Amino acid sequence: MTMAPQRQMTLSGDEGLDLDALIDRRRPGYSLEAPFYISQEFFERDVDAIFASTWIFVASTAEVPEPGDYVTIDIGTYSVIVIRDDDGGIRAHHNVCRHRGTRLLTEATGSVGNIVCSYHQWTYTPTGELISAGVQAPGFDMACFTLRPVDVRVVAGLIFICLAAEAPEDFDDFAAVVGPYIAPHAIDRTKVAAQVDLVEDANWKLVMENNRECYHCEAGHPELTCTFFPTYGYRPNEIPNRLLPAYQRYLDAEEALHENCRRNGLPYALVEELSGRPTGFRIERAALDGKGESYTMDGSAASAKLLGDLDTFVLGRASLHVQPNMWFHAMGDHVVTFSLVPLGPDRTLVRTTWLVDAEAAEGVDYDLDHLTTVWIRTNEQDAVFCERGQLGVSSPAYEPGPYAPTENHLEEFCTWYIERLKAHRERTASQVRPRTSAG
Amino acid sequence: MTMAPQRQMTLSGDEGLDLDALIDRRRPGYSLEAPFYISQEFFERDVDAIFASTWIFVASTAEVPEPGDYVTIDIGTYSVIVIRDDDGGIRAHHNVCRHRGTRLLTEATGSVGNIVCSYHQWTYTPTGELISAGVQAPGFDMACFTLRPVDVRVVAGLIFICLAAEAPEDFDDFAAVVGPYIAPHAIDRTKVAAQVDLVEDANWKLVMENNRECYHCEAGHPELTCTFFPTYGYRPNEIPNRLLPAYQRYLDAEEALHENCRRNGLPYALVEELSGRPTGFRIERAALDGKGESYTMDGSAASAKLLGDLDTFVLGRASLHVQPNMWFHAMGDHVVTFSLVPLGPDRTLVRTTWLVDAEAAEGVDYDLDHLTTVWIRTNEQDAVFCERGQLGVSSPAYEPGPYAPTENHLEEFCTWYIERLKAHRERTASQVRPRTSAG
Amino acid sequence: MTMAPQRQMTLSGDEGLDLDALIDRRRPGYSLEAPFYISQEFFERDVDAIFASTWIFVASTAEVPEPGDYVTIDIGTYSVIVIRDDDGGIRAHHNVCRHRGTRLLTEATGSVGNIVCSYHQWTYTPTGELISAGVQAPGFDMACFTLRPVDVRVVAGLIFICLAAEAPEDFDDFAAVVGPYIAPHAIDRTKVAAQVDLVEDANWKLVMENNRECYHCEAGHPELTCTFFPTYGYRPNEIPNRLLPAYQRYLDAEEALHENCRRNGLPYALVEELSGRPTGFRIERAALDGKGESYTMDGSAASAKLLGDLDTFVLGRASLHVQPNMWFHAMGDHVVTFSLVPLGPDRTLVRTTWLVDAEAAEGVDYDLDHLTTVWIRTNEQDAVFCERGQLGVSSPAYEPGPYAPTENHLEEFCTWYIERLKAHRERTASQVRPRTSAG
Repeated sequence: MTMAPQRQMTLSGDEGLDLDALIDRRRPGYSLEAPFYISQEFFERDVDAIFASTWIFVASTAEVPEPGDYVTIDIGTYSVIVIRDDDGGIRAHHNVCRHRGTRLLTEATGSVGNIVCSYHQWTYTPTGELISAGVQAPGFDMACFTLRPVDVRVVAGLIFICLAAEAPEDFDDFAAVVGPYIAPHAIDRTKVAAQVDLVEDANWKLVMENNRECYHCEAGHPELTCTFFPTYGYRPNEIPNRLLPAYQRYLDAEEALHENCRRNGLPYALVEELSGRPTGFRIERAALDGKGESYTMDGSAASAKLLGDLDTFVLGRASLHVQPNMWFHAMGDHVVTFSLVPLGPDRTLVRTTWLVDAEAAEGVDYDLDHLTTVWIRTNEQDAVFCERGQLGVSSPAYEPGPYAPTENHLEEFCTWYIERLKAHRERTASQVRPRTSAG
Repeated sequence: MTMAPQRQMTLSGDEGLDLDALIDRRRPGYSLEAPFYISQEFFERDVDAIFASTWIFVASTAEVPEPGDYVTIDIGTYSVIVIRDDDGGIRAHHNVCRHRGTRLLTEATGSVGNIVCSYHQWTYTPTGELISAGVQAPGFDMACFTLRPVDVRVVAGLIFICLAAEAPEDFDDFAAVVGPYIAPHAIDRTKVAAQVDLVEDANWKLVMENNRECYHCEAGHPELTCTFFPTYGYRPNEIPNRLLPAYQRYLDAEEALHENCRRNGLPYALVEELSGRPTGFRIERAALDGKGESYTMDGSAASAKLLGDLDTFVLGRASLHVQPNMWFHAMGDHVVTFSLVPLGPDRTLVRTTWLVDAEAAEGVDYDLDHLTTVWIRTNEQDAVFCERGQLGVSSPAYEPGPYAPTENHLEEFCTWYIERLKAHRERTASQVRPRTSAG
Repeated sequence: MTMAPQRQMTLSGDEGLDLDALIDRRRPGYSLEAPFYISQEFFERDVDAIFASTWIFVASTAEVPEPGDYVTIDIGTYSVIVIRDDDGGIRAHHNVCRHRGTRLLTEATGSVGNIVCSYHQWTYTPTGELISAGVQAPGFDMACFTLRPVDVRVVAGLIFICLAAEAPEDFDDFAAVVGPYIAPHAIDRTKVAAQVDLVEDANWKLVMENNRECYHCEAGHPELTCTFFPTYGYRPNEIPNRLLPAYQRYLDAEEALHENCRRNGLPYALVEELSGRPTGFRIERAALDGKGESYTMDGSAASAKLLGDLDTFVLGRASLHVQPNMWFHAMGDHVVTFSLVPLGPDRTLVRTTWLVDAEAAEGVDYDLDHLTTVWIRTNEQDAVFCERGQLGVSSPAYEPGPYAPTENHLEEFCTWYIERLKAHRERTASQVRPRTSAG
């Protein structure tokens, strides 16, 4: 006898949903009400108010090392080309031909001389100028048909874009703070060792919330907790008794780490501004368990080549979180970046990229399994948690529950999120721009 | 040359649909208008007004024989745990962790000691009490976070749940009537021999309508009509001539059946209250053709062990229909239950479960093919009919057609259905409860 | 490392879409605004205002050669049977049983004596009369339950249907003009050699637009341009220099063609009425490159049997376009028909059918590869272009771009399309027919 899978039903009947009321009555200290996680309306609001309004991490410069190298990134129905121009600068353009709108670059990554539309061969330079367009009527002016640009900024090798007409200005301040933590890892001198895309059947906010607490790590992430202290998020006086030995190791490792940091001139203090600003972020350098060198099964370095000019592998992890879509860890031997893109109310792309020194040779200086096992397993485990969360909050019986003390970053995330929705609401209320406008 | 399948298009443009007008103008004696079968709006109304408002059959007690045994059932976006508690009682809970809403049990069936959330290990007893929740803030009261309960009732081994805040009270009366028919088959002393889930690409009402008439049996169900008299639904004076020999056999078999029933103390009279009440139902005991023992290809018993304390296999079928989602046949040797769950406007899950005496041994006392062939084939045939019905009523050219006299149960079903929609409309009109409420 | 495909997100939040405003402000000379191509609302409007209001090409008579032969065609949620009746006439009926709405014929093509519903055996003649309906109540009148008819017309072997209550009357004029061009190819004396269905992930209007210009042929269709002059669409004074040699060959070939046409009594003048009327069309006979006989890789005939009573293969192509869904080429040796059916805002079925003389034997008189390669490859290439177009116009950054001079047929298509939407708006504004009516 076979048992066919009992597939999940999706209700779309949100015609009566009052988004504003839900935004205004969000209860501090509790998870969000269901529509934030499951409705098409909030998904579209999130694309507009969050992903098309704030700075979004898209790639590192190591992914586009040479002129003409590009990556394409899809956010909602937007598609953006991030390309290195002939002068070495990083540019971003909408991936839309100015003729009849054809998507220009269809691969996730690649290299071109110019950007040539496959349909009628309209040709654009990496900086976006139209230089060829076939036979046109008299008066056709190529200067009127440059690629539509997208704001782009680079911080110590991390590329961010912003789809908004006016990008948040607090990016400069953010860059000034976080740059010194990351610059010593010399991302410009790394290469991509591996990249994995994982599609999780969960709302992007559940994916972010999952990443912001380690309440679930001890039971849920056996590989990660080889090196990541499961005391993360607990205040010293709240640490469960069973975790006290791990906490003592953590204190010892922190002391050794700080000595190494001082010697290498690396900042390590925690800076946490997760809410209260458009570009909410958190950065710190913290010790790793085990050998303390890297996110591996035993804590030993995964790549034999030190990054940049660092003099030791024992540098813990420089960990950066940026609202709404990235987290990041830089170690002495490698860097791992994480970014997410919402694909639907209940689908999110999580991209993980491992960078090692550009001179490191696979099979000689690093082994891919050793390098990637911890986060591949951890991501897979998190995907299961997030998918169970999505199923659960979809029930009409779900009601918001209390965040535990160790989940305080989730509260920060929700605070930031509601702030952004309100800011977007104020902006759009002051505009008279019908949505069917041709732009 | 290949011919790609021409896939069906789904229109969702029901923004102008006036559900109330459609409900009010339903024409007696005719099939329903198309939106009842095809629109997302009526699907969602059906989940609310029917499946979350009336008693729903979910399983038999044979599916959860021991303490900790559970089944999960998804209805719309609801997910419910039906579990046997440590005292042997049957409990039902929403399958939603009270922390951040994670789905608790992810398997369709299984056995647990306590219900432990996989995410942060919140732990609930089978009766729903929270007994462990990790480190929480001072003042956290576990008694405030018990699993949200669901009404549950058991009738002679058949488990019904009701998702409504106030379950229909006529269940007691229903139970009193049907219990004596079913109890002699001793479902508590059976086991599951087989269970098959079939997803039909049709609205749940077409699936129910299909089950309520045998106008299509003679041509459509060669295996079923080995034992099921195709005269079902015809009044004596309306039986087609070609069916008169079958009708004579039916009369003879009924006479023999009644004698056996009287000797075993089994009620057999027809009780039909398919409309006019929330828990609409119909029960009777009727003769089977062939050997008259069971739903098999030749009418002989499929299991060598008599159920309960019955003294003969020749007991026909005790057949129960309960609005909106179950039908059921109990024979001397086995029981077969059918339940359906709507998955979408055009998708319905049909679950069929065969129960035999708990002591019967597969391969010795019963053969799975012999036991299941008739209903597996019949269900597959019905799925084709229902799917063709769904395609047909989706055409703008469809208009309701007349039910034939032998389709009188369909008329009863539609009457009941419209009654329930109207009752739900009255209930919700008297409430001022915005649907975005957190509950 | 694996890279999961980054799937495209679909936004459905068109609740605020003002279709009328978009229709009224269409800018001549530019491609349509995005909602016309991507929104569910315009898709449904297109089904109503275009595909259920104008004449639609569905098949050739060669596909239903004998009485009882039928094809079924699905347009939106409509399903239509096109069947040859016992007198040899072509009939069209809605494919919906008058009992409970079941779809009657479920195959794309076949042959029947009568049309018998598989569910309860209601039986209809090919002309649509109900002749059997089982046991019914007194007073049941079979004459009230004939199949609902669909308007159907045949022009020189090409079958068109119209789902509208009142079909456009300009069809007669259209038929009178185009019949003489096509009749000499004797479609009634052909057979189907091959038929291919291709589902393109693009709006039907992008598929039509793609077919109306050859700006993309030179770079995009190496097989097609073996015989199709890539100068199509250019005015003589606008032909790019690199195409001048091809243009000279074209002028020479035209001269030879006209001589052959005069001898065979074939009209060849261009008649172009692509807009300004419901049944917009364009017909001409034009020379082919290479041997000038057929759409093959070298221009030589693909079938050794001349069609009808033609005396030479060198007859170029009689090319017909009919708004909204067909294009067609008749050569001396074979005919190829193309039709499209919209399946969704971003999905379109393209059906291509090759007809050869009914006496031609596969493997002897024609080779399937030789016959079909050019259009199979060309269709595949066009599908890629259309799909990239769909992705591109879905971006919020898309804005309509200018049609080049050689894209003048696209402008004609858009003009016709907007005319039809406006005509439909006027018709429906003058009706008071709620859409939930039972008909």
